[in-house]
Amino acid sequence: MVTSFVTLLSDFGLKDPYVAEMKAVIMSICPEAQIIDISHDIEKFSIRMGAFVLASAAPYFPKGTIHVAVVDPGVGTKRRPILVETSHSFYVGPDNGLLPLAAQKQGIKHVYNITSSRYKLAQVSKTFHGRDIFAPVAAHLASGSKPQDFGAEIYDYIIPKFAKPEHTGKELHGEVLHIDDFGNIITNISAEDLGKTRIKEGLTFRLKLKGKEVVELKFRSTYGEAHIGKPLALIGSHDFLEISIDQGNASKKFRTKTGDPITVVLDKQS
Amino acid sequence: MVTSFVTLLSDFGLKDPYVAEMKAVIMSICPEAQIIDISHDIEKFSIRMGAFVLASAAPYFPKGTIHVAVVDPGVGTKRRPILVETSHSFYVGPDNGLLPLAAQKQGIKHVYNITSSRYKLAQVSKTFHGRDIFAPVAAHLASGSKPQDFGAEIYDYIIPKFAKPEHTGKELHGEVLHIDDFGNIITNISAEDLGKTRIKEGLTFRLKLKGKEVVELKFRSTYGEAHIGKPLALIGSHDFLEISIDQGNASKKFRTKTGDPITVVLDKQS
Amino acid sequence: MVTSFVTLLSDFGLKDPYVAEMKAVIMSICPEAQIIDISHDIEKFSIRMGAFVLASAAPYFPKGTIHVAVVDPGVGTKRRPILVETSHSFYVGPDNGLLPLAAQKQGIKHVYNITSSRYKLAQVSKTFHGRDIFAPVAAHLASGSKPQDFGAEIYDYIIPKFAKPEHTGKELHGEVLHIDDFGNIITNISAEDLGKTRIKEGLTFRLKLKGKEVVELKFRSTYGEAHIGKPLALIGSHDFLEISIDQGNASKKFRTKTGDPITVVLDKQS
Repeated sequence: MVTSFVTLLSDFGLKDPYVAEMKAVIMSICPEAQIIDISHDIEKFSIRMGAFVLASAAPYFPKGTIHVAVVDPGVGTKRRPILVETSHSFYVGPDNGLLPLAAQKQGIKHVYNITSSRYKLAQVSKTFHGRDIFAPVAAHLASGSKPQDFGAEIYDYIIPKFAKPEHTGKELHGEVLHIDDFGNIITNISAEDLGKTRIKEGLTFRLKLKGKEVVELKFRSTYGEAHIGKPLALIGSHDFLEISIDQGNASKKFRTKTGDPITVVLDKQS
Repeated sequence: MVTSFVTLLSDFGLKDPYVAEMKAVIMSICPEAQIIDISHDIEKFSIRMGAFVLASAAPYFPKGTIHVAVVDPGVGTKRRPILVETSHSFYVGPDNGLLPLAAQKQGIKHVYNITSSRYKLAQVSKTFHGRDIFAPVAAHLASGSKPQDFGAEIYDYIIPKFAKPEHTGKELHGEVLHIDDFGNIITNISAEDLGKTRIKEGLTFRLKLKGKEVVELKFRSTYGEAHIGKPLALIGSHDFLEISIDQGNASKKFRTKTGDPITVVLDKQS
Repeated sequence: MVTSFVTLLSDFGLKDPYVAEMKAVIMSICPEAQIIDISHDIEKFSIRMGAFVLASAAPYFPKGTIHVAVVDPGVGTKRRPILVETSHSFYVGPDNGLLPLAAQKQGIKHVYNITSSRYKLAQVSKTFHGRDIFAPVAAHLASGSKPQDFGAEIYDYIIPKFAKPEHTGKELHGEVLHIDDFGNIITNISAEDLGKTRIKEGLTFRLKLKGKEVVELKFRSTYGEAHIGKPLALIGSHDFLEISIDQGNASKKFRTKTGDPITVVLDKQS
C-alpha cells in the first residue's frame, strides 16, 4: 500500500471550519491520505511568511509528499491555480509567489496551470479555492492522477522577490522573513552568505535595524551559551541568521516585524 | 477494512490536555479511527457559534462520519447526552441545541438519549463528559456498536432558536451567526433568502447593524473585485450573506459580534 | 500490524514550522506511526506546566504509546536527552524535570541517556533537538528499536520539585500547577490530600491565595450546581482541587498565575 502524505498550510486560523472542510474534501476523495498541518497561523495575506514556513518544513517530509498551501489575497480574480512538480514533492496552490521558495530548493521540474474542471468540486465558490480546487486536486493526485492531467504546463509562473541579501561595499543588506513564536527575528541572510564575510562565531558585530538603530551582537552558536535576557545572533535551525534573546523576546525588544530591512555592518566585528 | 472517521469540535482550546484526552480515549477503544479536528476554538460556551461551525463543516465529510461536539455549559447537570443519526452521519454531544443545525440539513432519522453505562468510561467525572461519555460512545459506534445500543429513542430534544431571518414589509431581519478569523461577519441570511428579494450582484443596498447604523454596501461576487479596505457584501462559501472588507477586518470596523441583529433594507437598492 | 502511537508536546506554538518538521522527521523514519498532538501551547519555557499537561493526558493513551515532550530552555547546553521506560509508555525529551511527573505515575522502569548518534538526524542543530534528536529517537523506537539501544542507563535524572502540598498544623500549603483555558485554577492539592481533612463536598472553607487574600469557597461537585459568575471549589477531571467560576474566569478574578502559593485553611469549614 502506498501511503500518501498531504500537508496543509494556510492563513485560515484554526477557529473557523475552513481547514476541516479542506480535510473533509481530501478524505472524501482519498480516504487513505495522511493529512498533516504545517501551519494555519500564517499572518493574514502574508505570502512572504507563508513561503518561508513552507520552505522551512517541506524538506523534512518524505519523497512524494503533496503540499497544499493557501495564502490567497487574490482568490476569485484571474490569478491562476497551479501544481508544481519538483524532484522531491508536489505543491498545489495559487500562482502568487507562495510556492516557488520551497519548490526551487528541490528543483522545479514542471509547473501546470490547473484548468481541468474534472478535478474540482462540482460547485466552485468564488471565495474558497482551498476547499473547492486545491484540496480536491491534491486528493486526486494522491489517488494516482498524473500531474499533467490537471492542465497545461506553464513557464511564466510568479517568482517572488523576497530578495537574497544584497552585498554592497561594507554592508550586507537583508530583510526580516519571519518572527517566530519565541520572538526570534529570522532574516534572509543565510549561513552561506555570512560564511563569505569575516564574521565568525565568538565575534561581536554590528547590525542596523530598519536602516537606523545600531545594535552590537555577539555571534553565538546556541541560545544556552548566552546570558538570560541578553540579545545574541546565531544561525538558527533553518540555516538563516537569527536575532534572539535567550528566554526573552527579540522582536518585542527591537520592535521588528516581517519585511523590515536588516543590515550587517561588515567591517566592525571584533 | 472500514475506515471510521471521527471529528471533534469543542470550546476547549488547544492549550490544555482536554482534547488530547478525548483522542486518547477514542484511540484506546478504536485504534483504527481517523480523528479529525473541526475546531476547538469555539467561543467559550457559545452554542450558537459551535452549531454554525459544525453545520458548515459536516456536509463535506464522508458518509458515516461520527461527529463529536462539546460546547457544554450545563455539564454535570441534568441535560441529556444524545446521539443523533441522520441519513449521512452521526452526532454525539449534549442535548442543548448544539447538534440539530448540522443534523437537520442531513435529515434526522433518530435521536437517542445516551444512558447505557456500558459505553462510558468506568469513572465518569462531573466536569468532563467529552472525555468520559461522548468520546467513548463515538469510539464504540466507530467499532461497530449500533446507535440503538446506547439508550432509548427520544423526540423532545432541544431545537435551537437561531432564527431563520424574518421578513417584514420592506426589511429582512437576521442576525450575526459567526465572526470568522478574517473578521468577516457571517449572517443567517442565506443566498436563498436574498434570492427572493430584488437585491442582486452588482447593486448597492442598505443594511442596519444592531438596529441603528445604516451602511451602504455594494453586493459583490468575490473579495478580489472590491477595492482594498472597502466594505462589501457577498455570498460566502457557506451560502450565507457576509459583510467583508477586502484584506481588512469588517467585524472591527463595525464593532459587530455574534448574535447582533442585522437588517437588510429591501426597497433601497440601486 | 502494530500501530505505533506517538504523541507530541511542546512550547513551540502552532504558527511556526517547528511542529510540522518534527512530524515530518517521524513519518520519514516510521510512516505507519500515528502522531497525536497533546499540546504545543505550553507557556514558553514552563517545565512545570508542560509536566502537568503531559501527566494529565498520558494515562489515557494506549499501552506502548511513545510521548515526545520538548520544553527545553537548556537546548544546546549539557543537559542530557533521555528516554524513560515505564510499565505503560515511553517518554522522550530533555532531562530537566519535564518527564518524571507523568512517568512516575506509571512506574519508572529504566531511564536511558540518549547518546547513540545512529538514531539522530545526520546533522544535529544546536537549537532544535526536538527535530534532530527526540523525533528520530521516537520514530526508531516506534519502528522496533529497543530502548537500551539508544544509550546507557542512568539513575541520576532530575526529579522536579513541584512539591506535593505540605501539611502544617491547621493549613495545607500547595501551589498553582496550571491555569486552563477556561481560567480554572488547578492546584497540586489532590482529592486524596483533601480526603484526609474535614473538608467535604457541600461545606464552605477558606483559602489563602499568594499567602494573603482569604476567599470563602463552597466546595461543589460540579460547575453546573453553582450560580453563574460565583466562585466555587471542586475536584476537577484530573483529581486536583480547582478554583472555578461557573461560566467565568477564576484566574482573572483572583489574578493568579502558575506557581502561586495556595493555602487551604483546615479549621474553618462550615
